[in-house]
Amino acid sequence: MRDKCGVVGISTAADDVARPIYYALYALQHRGQESAGIVTHDGFQQHSHIAMGLVGEAFDEADLVGLGGAAGIGHVRYPTAGSVEKSCAQPFTVSFKNGSLALCHNGNLVNAGELRGDLESLGHAFTSDGDTEVIAHDLARNLLRADLVRAVKRTMGRIHGSYSLTIMHDDTVLGVRDPEGNRPLCIGKVDDGYILCSESAAIDTLGGELIRDVCPGELIVLEDDGTGFESYQLIETDRTAHCFFEWVYFARPDSIIDEKLVYEVRREIGRSLWEESGIETDVVMPVPDSGRAFASGYVEAAPDTVEFAEGLMKNRYVGRTFIMPTQDERERAVRLKHNPIKSTVAGRTVTLVDDSIVRGTTSDQLVAVLRAAGAQEVHMRIGAPPIIAPCYMGIDMATRDELIATDRTIEEIRDVIGADSLKYISAGAVAKAICKDSSALCMACITGEYPYDIDGEQTDRPVTRPTIGEPPASADD
Amino acid sequence: MRDKCGVVGISTAADDVARPIYYALYALQHRGQESAGIVTHDGFQQHSHIAMGLVGEAFDEADLVGLGGAAGIGHVRYPTAGSVEKSCAQPFTVSFKNGSLALCHNGNLVNAGELRGDLESLGHAFTSDGDTEVIAHDLARNLLRADLVRAVKRTMGRIHGSYSLTIMHDDTVLGVRDPEGNRPLCIGKVDDGYILCSESAAIDTLGGELIRDVCPGELIVLEDDGTGFESYQLIETDRTAHCFFEWVYFARPDSIIDEKLVYEVRREIGRSLWEESGIETDVVMPVPDSGRAFASGYVEAAPDTVEFAEGLMKNRYVGRTFIMPTQDERERAVRLKHNPIKSTVAGRTVTLVDDSIVRGTTSDQLVAVLRAAGAQEVHMRIGAPPIIAPCYMGIDMATRDELIATDRTIEEIRDVIGADSLKYISAGAVAKAICKDSSALCMACITGEYPYDIDGEQTDRPVTRPTIGEPPASADD
Amino acid sequence: MRDKCGVVGISTAADDVARPIYYALYALQHRGQESAGIVTHDGFQQHSHIAMGLVGEAFDEADLVGLGGAAGIGHVRYPTAGSVEKSCAQPFTVSFKNGSLALCHNGNLVNAGELRGDLESLGHAFTSDGDTEVIAHDLARNLLRADLVRAVKRTMGRIHGSYSLTIMHDDTVLGVRDPEGNRPLCIGKVDDGYILCSESAAIDTLGGELIRDVCPGELIVLEDDGTGFESYQLIETDRTAHCFFEWVYFARPDSIIDEKLVYEVRREIGRSLWEESGIETDVVMPVPDSGRAFASGYVEAAPDTVEFAEGLMKNRYVGRTFIMPTQDERERAVRLKHNPIKSTVAGRTVTLVDDSIVRGTTSDQLVAVLRAAGAQEVHMRIGAPPIIAPCYMGIDMATRDELIATDRTIEEIRDVIGADSLKYISAGAVAKAICKDSSALCMACITGEYPYDIDGEQTDRPVTRPTIGEPPASADD
Amino acid sequence: MRDKCGVVGISTAADDVARPIYYALYALQHRGQESAGIVTHDGFQQHSHIAMGLVGEAFDEADLVGLGGAAGIGHVRYPTAGSVEKSCAQPFTVSFKNGSLALCHNGNLVNAGELRGDLESLGHAFTSDGDTEVIAHDLARNLLRADLVRAVKRTMGRIHGSYSLTIMHDDTVLGVRDPEGNRPLCIGKVDDGYILCSESAAIDTLGGELIRDVCPGELIVLEDDGTGFESYQLIETDRTAHCFFEWVYFARPDSIIDEKLVYEVRREIGRSLWEESGIETDVVMPVPDSGRAFASGYVEAAPDTVEFAEGLMKNRYVGRTFIMPTQDERERAVRLKHNPIKSTVAGRTVTLVDDSIVRGTTSDQLVAVLRAAGAQEVHMRIGAPPIIAPCYMGIDMATRDELIATDRTIEEIRDVIGADSLKYISAGAVAKAICKDSSALCMACITGEYPYDIDGEQTDRPVTRPTIGEPPASADD
Repeated sequence: MRDKCGVVGISTAADDVARPIYYALYALQHRGQESAGIVTHDGFQQHSHIAMGLVGEAFDEADLVGLGGAAGIGHVRYPTAGSVEKSCAQPFTVSFKNGSLALCHNGNLVNAGELRGDLESLGHAFTSDGDTEVIAHDLARNLLRADLVRAVKRTMGRIHGSYSLTIMHDDTVLGVRDPEGNRPLCIGKVDDGYILCSESAAIDTLGGELIRDVCPGELIVLEDDGTGFESYQLIETDRTAHCFFEWVYFARPDSIIDEKLVYEVRREIGRSLWEESGIETDVVMPVPDSGRAFASGYVEAAPDTVEFAEGLMKNRYVGRTFIMPTQDERERAVRLKHNPIKSTVAGRTVTLVDDSIVRGTTSDQLVAVLRAAGAQEVHMRIGAPPIIAPCYMGIDMATRDELIATDRTIEEIRDVIGADSLKYISAGAVAKAICKDSSALCMACITGEYPYDIDGEQTDRPVTRPTIGEPPASADD
Repeated sequence: MRDKCGVVGISTAADDVARPIYYALYALQHRGQESAGIVTHDGFQQHSHIAMGLVGEAFDEADLVGLGGAAGIGHVRYPTAGSVEKSCAQPFTVSFKNGSLALCHNGNLVNAGELRGDLESLGHAFTSDGDTEVIAHDLARNLLRADLVRAVKRTMGRIHGSYSLTIMHDDTVLGVRDPEGNRPLCIGKVDDGYILCSESAAIDTLGGELIRDVCPGELIVLEDDGTGFESYQLIETDRTAHCFFEWVYFARPDSIIDEKLVYEVRREIGRSLWEESGIETDVVMPVPDSGRAFASGYVEAAPDTVEFAEGLMKNRYVGRTFIMPTQDERERAVRLKHNPIKSTVAGRTVTLVDDSIVRGTTSDQLVAVLRAAGAQEVHMRIGAPPIIAPCYMGIDMATRDELIATDRTIEEIRDVIGADSLKYISAGAVAKAICKDSSALCMACITGEYPYDIDGEQTDRPVTRPTIGEPPASADD
Repeated sequence: MRDKCGVVGISTAADDVARPIYYALYALQHRGQESAGIVTHDGFQQHSHIAMGLVGEAFDEADLVGLGGAAGIGHVRYPTAGSVEKSCAQPFTVSFKNGSLALCHNGNLVNAGELRGDLESLGHAFTSDGDTEVIAHDLARNLLRADLVRAVKRTMGRIHGSYSLTIMHDDTVLGVRDPEGNRPLCIGKVDDGYILCSESAAIDTLGGELIRDVCPGELIVLEDDGTGFESYQLIETDRTAHCFFEWVYFARPDSIIDEKLVYEVRREIGRSLWEESGIETDVVMPVPDSGRAFASGYVEAAPDTVEFAEGLMKNRYVGRTFIMPTQDERERAVRLKHNPIKSTVAGRTVTLVDDSIVRGTTSDQLVAVLRAAGAQEVHMRIGAPPIIAPCYMGIDMATRDELIATDRTIEEIRDVIGADSLKYISAGAVAKAICKDSSALCMACITGEYPYDIDGEQTDRPVTRPTIGEPPASADD
Repeated sequence: MRDKCGVVGISTAADDVARPIYYALYALQHRGQESAGIVTHDGFQQHSHIAMGLVGEAFDEADLVGLGGAAGIGHVRYPTAGSVEKSCAQPFTVSFKNGSLALCHNGNLVNAGELRGDLESLGHAFTSDGDTEVIAHDLARNLLRADLVRAVKRTMGRIHGSYSLTIMHDDTVLGVRDPEGNRPLCIGKVDDGYILCSESAAIDTLGGELIRDVCPGELIVLEDDGTGFESYQLIETDRTAHCFFEWVYFARPDSIIDEKLVYEVRREIGRSLWEESGIETDVVMPVPDSGRAFASGYVEAAPDTVEFAEGLMKNRYVGRTFIMPTQDERERAVRLKHNPIKSTVAGRTVTLVDDSIVRGTTSDQLVAVLRAAGAQEVHMRIGAPPIIAPCYMGIDMATRDELIATDRTIEEIRDVIGADSLKYISAGAVAKAICKDSSALCMACITGEYPYDIDGEQTDRPVTRPTIGEPPASADD
């Protein structure tokens, strides 16, 4: 499933688990606005409610009341370019010989096609295109002949790619993170129980405490009575591939991912951005809201003569239902979304700070808006290195053709967007801000070297895909 | 799937098959109002649209335009007592090693649980409770090692119960009827192609011609180019079990089922009803609309002094969204639905004719309404024998406890509903009207003897359930 | 307001008047399917709920609970060709110096434009195009200087046209019928109170008793405590103009309008139709459901050799949301709505009986359907005389151009619709069936002579429009 | 109409005025989220579309296409405590003797009841409770006997209170601002025409230029062909009463109101806040987003040792459909909406800056959230003086009982919200930041002295309500 998503799993002693999951999904709403779903289990049976739209649109009070039980998992799904269908909404549920399974997946398998082919050879039939269904069928199959921990291990041995999963087998809630730790997953303590979730902000929201990140290759099994959890390091791994974009763009500023607060990483990158390429202009302003933390760090490192001020006002109401202006009214659309605060801009030299440039279209327009508002100079400073390669690990960023930096020098990009100067942060400074060696991060989109074995792409490490085609391991191995 | 449903399958030379399917579903709407769905195939891929509600609510013009292709199947589903869920709506679709499958099912399997257990043992996981998914998985599995005709034969050898199916494998449309022919299925010629459907009225609606009924145990494969069809008698059968209730209640009067026009069967039963138990009253009136054809036959056979007139006016707007009166306003609900035409009733002796009595609650109330309107005598004549046993073959009639006739004599029933006399037609007269030997009909609900092997029930013939647990037949048998 | 509508008004001792109004509107649903509304008054304030769609769509349980009070009025509105807007939905409500007014109107004023101009000259401003708002403003104005009865009388002296109104002034419910009695209105006794409504079937539905029709020119005021009603004959009238089409087409068969049961009128017309133009064919069949009562009377008068049978099956699901076939699929649309029962038709001579022919398009198609089904001859018999002129009194029938009979002889019409013979009932027979002198009926659509003073049309009696422009009557007249 | 709303009026040479009005309403969405409406006039007739919800929900492409014409007005409405009804949505439209009127109102009349009584005495009837309808009727009445300018002048002489109106008489668009200039209204040049709107940001959005504010007591009439506008100073006024809260809270930071950029006013207040009551803490943080500009000014004035950082993360998805936690889960609701960024807060002294305190409940909870996140000290600084009196001029703030400052000293308020210190800005500093004498502002909510004659309240100037009861001025005055 090519998507940036949010996953949750909770097991408590209380029997109203749908409510904390609902609030946790609200806290993860920024990770997916296409659909929202919750599946719970009351010890006897599953209850499920999945609907299109935001969490607040997908659930009403009656829906929550209908989701009985002390264990459950939840999911918010990111809108991808392709088919917007209810059939792809999660959690994905199946029932099989030994009970019921529900799965929430954040990430993307590299070998889903092969694994699906293998299962089809064994007679399996599928109702969706998603790789989540493939994982579900493989896991169900393995559960026929092995206990829970061994079944998960076997499935992990067969899938290759990025995955943070929350899983519910009958009323047991599990969490699994891929051996590279590409997507985030953490565990926390909440009232009467424990929670697995994509970001720690969801734990805060419930008044709970972050315990730690789930380790790459680790399986966490929550106790059914909410009293604790068990850990199984199912796959040893010596080199992680945490997605650096989580800190730069995806995650909430108030989340702690792999031990680093996102807001601090962004401010630190901002400071480094000044160190690497600072320029003294009258004013520094963020692209709201994405550039705010970077700009605040940048200004902090700059001399006092450099003023920090808001120069662009964002209209938060421009959303899904907005009727786009016709082609010759394009400027209106930009002005509707970002209107300059003229006194900040007019007659002044300006530095505009943003988190990243993907296609370059917004940057282009914002520079024009600032010039029209009277800016004498417009300099851009960017909190991520140039993006030159697509993501195969779960982020629907863009194809190579669409990326402005794929075949352009920085000078050429500056020319396209019309800025007086343009500087990107260095990859090293990003890694330093995250307090990790860059080899521990997935930086494929800025290097073109991938931590997985992807057809037609280079890899940055020795990896082999699992051999799927062999008969599934026998029950006594 | 315990339901009375309508199924359609069409293959044409034109590429807008969704439109004729849509109209055919309109013609079959009386067989199911809960949900409606169409799946088409354009040679490259499947297109699907399934939604809750009536056909007219489920589809708009854009939905039809989106359903490209020259082959397709469609379904209307009957609202059953239990869960009203989108996941149970049909057609049911899966993709597997050798392509895609879509299925529409009218009927009910007796051994779905066993077959599901067998498939689960082989590793299969299921997304719904329905027996349609069980058929789909079994058929997909058999298609791995056999061609289409042999695969259908193997699946038919493993399932036991009533089923009229329209199936689409990639863009090939098939129709299958169970060896007892319990549910109807017929084949017709339409513009540029052929149609399989539950009732011939759907063929009329398309301006087509009924060719014949699909035989019990027969597989029909429509040619992909709309030029013809092939027939395979996969299971020989010497004794059918056509549901007699199709003629008495379910089907449209203008449909021809197993060579007999429904309207004529009902009028003939009406005539026999007079022969068997006619009573000369001032007026004969139908319960609208179910009793109309019976009443017209009854009056035809009666002396000229017996007048035929409408005595009850039915409010056609009382439907799903009607807010029921509170308990002490019950009479209102009856009066809202059936109001007497006083001049027909007041001061006169009345014969009220209906098709059947299931729970007896409506009959009870209608007699009261007629008496309140001044009827001197109210006699009831019923076009079906007393219903004493539940249906396991696809009709969600009632449980034994709910059936008024299970443990009451006719005299006791007459007493409950408060009529001056009550007579049912004989089973023999029904069979005669249908022009079939009663042993060729399923009359289980009036005899308690079933044509299938059902746990805890008697059977009217030597039958054995298929042995499911054995390994599926090898590829070279 | 050019519309065929249904109106209700109830005053009871109980305080849940919304519920009986809701059921009464269900009983009047055939008179209007575009919108439904209820306004109640609890002694302190008005409560209102008005929504588009059928009664069952417009109201849910919570809506009824919110409509407190012991007095209320309700309305169902007919979909007219023009603008479908919520602003035209009724009851129409205004508040003014001396309280609140709510009005429900069935009919159409001939002089609404003049009256509106007069009120505008006095400074009034209007929120809708409807004549109901005009009546409301005039009545409110008169209530400033006169008590209720005198104010209604003054307004009746200024408006000209057809109107059956239910009105609520604060919590007092009134009913008014225009001096010609063009639209029906009756009064009945129900539990704890009294009801005013368009048709008596609504009274039956509530288990009540019809008391009598409201007289032309009469005002009925219901007692606030549900104990009775007062009558004021505000305008004496010597010649009524009851719309004969109410009996022939609009009203329910089980309603009694101006002392004649609609069903009996239709059967009697059927009998006369045989007397005037009977032809012996193998079978007589109604166009369902409009022709059923006529056909039954026709057959009753015919020799026994003429069989009565259903020959056309109507699909009741073809409604507002139906997607029409494209031009070259026209036949499909007819077949979807009316499918022949072939055994009744094939190889036989047929008489088809319907209530009326307006544009002729349906008749044309039905004859073709019967011929295609094998009818040897098709004869049409019609329960109303040829319609040659438009209706200005509240029925949105058609313009003169659209009426098939405006400039054709009967023989020419027969030719257009393709029947072997075509006969209409005589106007005299219709009047006789209604038991009224034809001069007491409005037959303008079949004579072209109107009972009101309409620009560009002839009248059948001496009438003058009220002189609106003069100053409103002083308070002491 | 007690509401904070946004109004627009545009007249252009092009004939697609609905589109720029739609975008202007998007720019004013923050002023009202309950309903949105547009009324246009194409020279022949009015077109109207008004619906509940946000602009993006209320309009789709087809709605805009249906709104033909070169002149139009639009409105967004603020959700008030009382009845949420479609009947209160605007623009309000009436038709009368001399054409059609449409009105959009931002503000609140003090003497609406009296004026309504006067009109009711003249026979007027009303369909809503709103004072907009009262203005409409009065203006329509005056237009009977006077030309446009004189009619507006007469109505302005009869209404008393705050009002910024956009009005359309047939296809002529007007703007009127009350003599005290309480609510904002400005005029701008856009492509092919002119615009009247509540805030200049709407002009920016259309790529236009702000010309100036409409003067208190001024009528602006836009030329029908979009070529210019006329000005009429209908009421001379020597003392304005601009609402200071527009700059502090309501308006967008990028709007210029009465010649002052809102963002600059807020920053300047922030600077004064430091001058008046600065305290050196480790970090200064805004309540997002309302306190951001104030905090940025405050930090700018503070020594360099005081760090500016985000300490609270706002969840923008918590909106109308959010299901509130139960009472004992209250903390969750706060944490869902505002989660602390712990590294900014933990172990540090904190200054939290917000725009105002109304009821005090949010402040209370935010202080608790910061303390729970480890703040050593929490100091609050507020960009508006204590609010001690309700607003009668169009802002649904709160009743006196609900205002935390009505009967508490600042020290007592500090104690309630649990801060270590609490300081409000002085009224003088606010006026200075707005560059106006405080006597030119309406500061009634912080002084208790009103610029209008309100029953039971004191006034800060000599005012008398208009005498409504007298006969309307004759046509020749």
